Amino acid sequence: MNDAMPPAVDAAAYRAIDHARGAHFIDVLDQRLLPHAVETRRLASAEAVAAAIRDMAVRGAPLIGAVGAYGFALALDADPSDAGVARAHAMLDATRPTAVNLRWALDRVRARILPHAPAMRANAAWDEADAIRAEEVSINASLGLHGLSLLQDLMRDRERPLNVMTHCNAGALATCGFGTATAPIFLAHAQGMPLHVWVSETRPRLQGANLTAWEMAQRGIPHTLIVDSASGLLMRRGDVDLVILGADRVAANGDVCNKIGTYDKALAAADNHVPFYVALPSPTIDWRAASGDAIPIEARSPDEVLAIRGRTASRGTADAVAIAGDGTPALNLAFDVTPARLVTGYVTERGVAPDAAALRALHGDGT
Amino acid sequence: MNDAMPPAVDAAAYRAIDHARGAHFIDVLDQRLLPHAVETRRLASAEAVAAAIRDMAVRGAPLIGAVGAYGFALALDADPSDAGVARAHAMLDATRPTAVNLRWALDRVRARILPHAPAMRANAAWDEADAIRAEEVSINASLGLHGLSLLQDLMRDRERPLNVMTHCNAGALATCGFGTATAPIFLAHAQGMPLHVWVSETRPRLQGANLTAWEMAQRGIPHTLIVDSASGLLMRRGDVDLVILGADRVAANGDVCNKIGTYDKALAAADNHVPFYVALPSPTIDWRAASGDAIPIEARSPDEVLAIRGRTASRGTADAVAIAGDGTPALNLAFDVTPARLVTGYVTERGVAPDAAALRALHGDGT
Repeated sequence: MNDAMPPAVDAAAYRAIDHARGAHFIDVLDQRLLPHAVETRRLASAEAVAAAIRDMAVRGAPLIGAVGAYGFALALDADPSDAGVARAHAMLDATRPTAVNLRWALDRVRARILPHAPAMRANAAWDEADAIRAEEVSINASLGLHGLSLLQDLMRDRERPLNVMTHCNAGALATCGFGTATAPIFLAHAQGMPLHVWVSETRPRLQGANLTAWEMAQRGIPHTLIVDSASGLLMRRGDVDLVILGADRVAANGDVCNKIGTYDKALAAADNHVPFYVALPSPTIDWRAASGDAIPIEARSPDEVLAIRGRTASRGTADAVAIAGDGTPALNLAFDVTPARLVTGYVTERGVAPDAAALRALHGDGT
Repeated sequence: MNDAMPPAVDAAAYRAIDHARGAHFIDVLDQRLLPHAVETRRLASAEAVAAAIRDMAVRGAPLIGAVGAYGFALALDADPSDAGVARAHAMLDATRPTAVNLRWALDRVRARILPHAPAMRANAAWDEADAIRAEEVSINASLGLHGLSLLQDLMRDRERPLNVMTHCNAGALATCGFGTATAPIFLAHAQGMPLHVWVSETRPRLQGANLTAWEMAQRGIPHTLIVDSASGLLMRRGDVDLVILGADRVAANGDVCNKIGTYDKALAAADNHVPFYVALPSPTIDWRAASGDAIPIEARSPDEVLAIRGRTASRGTADAVAIAGDGTPALNLAFDVTPARLVTGYVTERGVAPDAAALRALHGDGT
């Protein structure tokens, strides 16, 4: 996939995003179809990119940052005027509100291109999007190595496989590289460390079942799918040595906004003295958000709660099944906030920070 | 439904179990079909009863106690010998391991009939099963009144509806009466108290979505369906005033074994100072289990995690959809254990006990 990635980790033949230098389109895996079908979609307009982010054909905080940057470049191909820049930024930024990486990438592209005359802007935007994607790949690799040390420490003098729990998908499918929370897992597995991953299914959209379990299977990593609410019991039983998961936005005080259910897992980890780590590339830190309370929580369609997509047993085709009676009201908040006090450490591309002060020391405050 | 039940609460025209005195069969709602179809199944043999419990056509700790007792009577219709008694007890007891009510009801029927000559046993068993069912109905009513006081206390001087959260189904469908955890809710609603119920969907089998949401709709009680892992966020936001749910077995030290996910909710309640109540009829207490560690946790088929049943969007028929790739390993533990320290109170037919000592004072130790 990239020179920065150890070959053994790159064995899996899939990637969430592809862009051939100079091409005026990107190819993305349509993640709504996984694991039942592996299909690539070509996105050749900013509108198509916005729809793909909104409908979650692509998802994952780092990935939607990069995809958004390419969407910005596509918009500038069509209209590089100041008005076009403003319109494209607003349209792409509005697709999803919680993950800060999208805004970060759009702001970065805008800052790069605005000094240029309109005619030069599109090329500069494509270059910047390529740069964001390349950095993202190398961030994954560095973050993975720091996380690997954590796993190695926990594995020392141990006689049974290390039990790692994750939630949602912070894997290769959520990034341009080989993932954030999964990066240490993939590296450890490639080195022969015996490990086993508890994959939390992640209702409502089932990214754990659909995506993370699939990624583990692609790489031959032992794993077991569980319902989200089984995590507490497993920790109580001593069957979890470490929780590691991603983030959509981390506030200046270390509060973590991530997929709904993360807070519940953090509480169970604290109650059972299980280390709880958040893996995040630095663009996920929002120094302007004082705490998790300042982070907007996306409410998505109740339909995602009320109906579940999958492959039918009777016909083998994709379908959705309604799980409640007609007219049942449902609420679908996509993310929750885990207070910093419940986080054992933040794994970034520059190292592992035990708290928000250490995170700031590693990364500055973005100013 | 019964004289012990206030008429306003009995407005809903469904019941989980029916037995006409003297009939050698019982009628049960097939709960696997709800909410998409309301169908009654007639059970006329002990084997049919065992299959209905095992396959969860009937479920809920109090209900499977009563249904099991009728199953015992059906077995004695066929073979009332000592060997037949032993065989029927063993077969029915093996259907589900965690809820103690089943064992309690079977032991009670056996103690009642064993002194009799074989020819007299079946009639005595039918009488005892009827008695268990009638007691169950009156337990629900008493428990409901004690729980109602709790809700009234929380409602005092309040200007917005009371937000109650529950998990799984401890409703009329889990009992012979109008439920355990739902009994106070139904009574409060019947009295005109403004309340709103957060219904946790309860993966893997979705008893919250399929059954509890349906019961609330039948009675016109405002409710909202959520995924299980949304409960922590809602409590953090101050949107939950009280959690009340059922139990499959409560140990002598007050540890609560209940549907998987109960422990996670208890942790979130404690972290956010939300009162956390367990509603239980006294037969759910197992004084012989010193703590939750002594309670066997049922592991059910991984298929319940890997495929989800519902009504298809495309055809409107019942079907199951696979949510993970073929061959994905899954673990399906049906219950978890909530330590007594996280429980605010135990609501029983004799009152509300704040801890295990008070529970023992209310109910003795069963000896």
